[in-house]
Amino acid sequence: MISLAPLHDVMARTGLDAVALVPGANFLRIFGKDFHQMERPLVVVVPRTGAPVAIVPNLEMGSFTPLGFPGEVFDWRDEEGYMEAFRKAGTALTQLGKGSRVGVEGQRMRVFDFQALQSVLPQAQLVDAHAGISAVRLHKTPGEIDALRTAIRMSEAALEATVLQVKVGMTEKQVEAILLSELFKAGCDGLSFDPIVAAGDNAARPHASARADYAIKPGDALLFDFGGRYHHFSADITRTFFVGHVTDHDRAFYDTVLAANAKGRDISKPGMTASDVDDAVCTVLERSQFAAFKRHKTGHGLGLDVHEAPQIMRGNGQKLEPGMVFTIEPGLYRDGEAGVRIEDDVVVTEAGIESLTTYPRDLRVIG
Amino acid sequence: MISLAPLHDVMARTGLDAVALVPGANFLRIFGKDFHQMERPLVVVVPRTGAPVAIVPNLEMGSFTPLGFPGEVFDWRDEEGYMEAFRKAGTALTQLGKGSRVGVEGQRMRVFDFQALQSVLPQAQLVDAHAGISAVRLHKTPGEIDALRTAIRMSEAALEATVLQVKVGMTEKQVEAILLSELFKAGCDGLSFDPIVAAGDNAARPHASARADYAIKPGDALLFDFGGRYHHFSADITRTFFVGHVTDHDRAFYDTVLAANAKGRDISKPGMTASDVDDAVCTVLERSQFAAFKRHKTGHGLGLDVHEAPQIMRGNGQKLEPGMVFTIEPGLYRDGEAGVRIEDDVVVTEAGIESLTTYPRDLRVIG
Repeated sequence: MISLAPLHDVMARTGLDAVALVPGANFLRIFGKDFHQMERPLVVVVPRTGAPVAIVPNLEMGSFTPLGFPGEVFDWRDEEGYMEAFRKAGTALTQLGKGSRVGVEGQRMRVFDFQALQSVLPQAQLVDAHAGISAVRLHKTPGEIDALRTAIRMSEAALEATVLQVKVGMTEKQVEAILLSELFKAGCDGLSFDPIVAAGDNAARPHASARADYAIKPGDALLFDFGGRYHHFSADITRTFFVGHVTDHDRAFYDTVLAANAKGRDISKPGMTASDVDDAVCTVLERSQFAAFKRHKTGHGLGLDVHEAPQIMRGNGQKLEPGMVFTIEPGLYRDGEAGVRIEDDVVVTEAGIESLTTYPRDLRVIG
Repeated sequence: MISLAPLHDVMARTGLDAVALVPGANFLRIFGKDFHQMERPLVVVVPRTGAPVAIVPNLEMGSFTPLGFPGEVFDWRDEEGYMEAFRKAGTALTQLGKGSRVGVEGQRMRVFDFQALQSVLPQAQLVDAHAGISAVRLHKTPGEIDALRTAIRMSEAALEATVLQVKVGMTEKQVEAILLSELFKAGCDGLSFDPIVAAGDNAARPHASARADYAIKPGDALLFDFGGRYHHFSADITRTFFVGHVTDHDRAFYDTVLAANAKGRDISKPGMTASDVDDAVCTVLERSQFAAFKRHKTGHGLGLDVHEAPQIMRGNGQKLEPGMVFTIEPGLYRDGEAGVRIEDDVVVTEAGIESLTTYPRDLRVIG
């Protein structure tokens, strides 16, 4: 049974008169089903008072109707285009008159959805309420945490199976292919994102792409940032290995990142702010001999979206609360040489945090 | 070496004063590399006159710098936020004054990128130029068609391997797991999209999700709509089988879709419009005894995006030209009973089209 109560809470908290959702994580959380977001717009508008409306491509009606949407649905066919359905929806939303504010998901809604909606609600102000709306997913249910736990367990099994097959001389692309295969063998039903498999200098690029023309050399760092999905929940794990051998300098480099990661896991607890966590983790890096090689914040929320609230970042006053899930992923990057990142997925408990990722973190030489 | 000439052609054709790109297919086509699109905006603005500018998250600089971007780059760090980088970019773009028009990718750019850009270019009008900009990808190079051919060959091998394992009593989710595993075993380096594996009544939903609680029954239609990716190019293939046996009614239903698919492949050639192709294909369905079960247009362009121009749709006057690639995917859907769709990926040649998909289309009973 669909409940729009979480969206009404959002409106009450933020003073919005309506919320417009497009397919994606918030939509999935509210309606229990997601839709492809391509050239056919699908938009749902839930006003504070009165009935919600939906604009739905006709070919999705077979999937949309069973949701039991509690409002009027304006479907449209390819041959007629979507604007007439938007116009009808706009006409139905008479309560959204002059001065009304309609919140949209700024990091998810695309410009053409936005412009179509604005054109049929000319009196209303469409505002970016991404953070406010996404708050419906800030606290995970036990069932959601179980799904994430399963995604993580499968992903960790795939990582271990992959690591055992890595040899000096393989390309990053070859290792990536093994990882992809192992993820689905482990039972994942999707990918959280295109995995990062980066060796040597490529590991110094936080979001590197695997190369087909670089063979892994002895002494290389080998960084995996990846995750499998299970029942819509995405694991997001980073581990960095060294291949063949490791220098003392790289060991000190690695152990600095590990100390920062451990600091984040040790101190996080309800009541602390996301800013406090980032500050403590970053301070470990900034007080080390490798301070110059820090490039990014500590982490981000994790759930139906791979990057969501709470951002674990200085300046974010969001207080940690039980049920929130986020990543702790400090990294250091020596351009042209090596990069190390160690990323865990943690859930806030009553007393502190529990790390859902349990894959060992100590420096390991493989291959 | 980066060439911005295709974007200058777009501006000349459309009268735009600048084009703004975000990560995605157009970005990848121009810069040879893609970036994650999450909470950190990355926007490139290429003006008709003067130097281009880029707004880039600092942690991506290790990947962005090697591109050799021919203009000024304003990077920003998590702790300072992105607005200052946008402001500097806006200040650098003095030529975009009152009345200037900046084209954006309306189906790709998100509202928060759009609003940030608009706020630092207050004199300029940001317009949705998705079709105009995406025209840079309308004609595929031989190398691009080779990549697509490889993605299709791997995907077809995975389908055949999967089909041989299907048995009555399996769930859709089980079959999906086999398909995913086979795709990566076949060498794909990504998924075009989350595959559709739909049996029985679920096959009547054009964009169904695989169910864990429905066991495939004798007589069920079993529809696969899926594709593996290779070197950024996405296969998009649909085949529908029957499991165990097939009724005469379902055979007639299937053969109607097959006739429509064949019509599309037979008649498509340079100089015809996308509208003409859709009209001919739809007419086969509309003149059949199953006219009431048609739900969607014939197809869409295919390349770095799974759905791109040219849309094969009545009303689209776009003329077919050699090098364009699109899908021919008529379907019929009997709600609550069965659905059939047969989808090929074709490239326009000098004389007609070549179907890049070669997997057999005749009705096949499996399991």
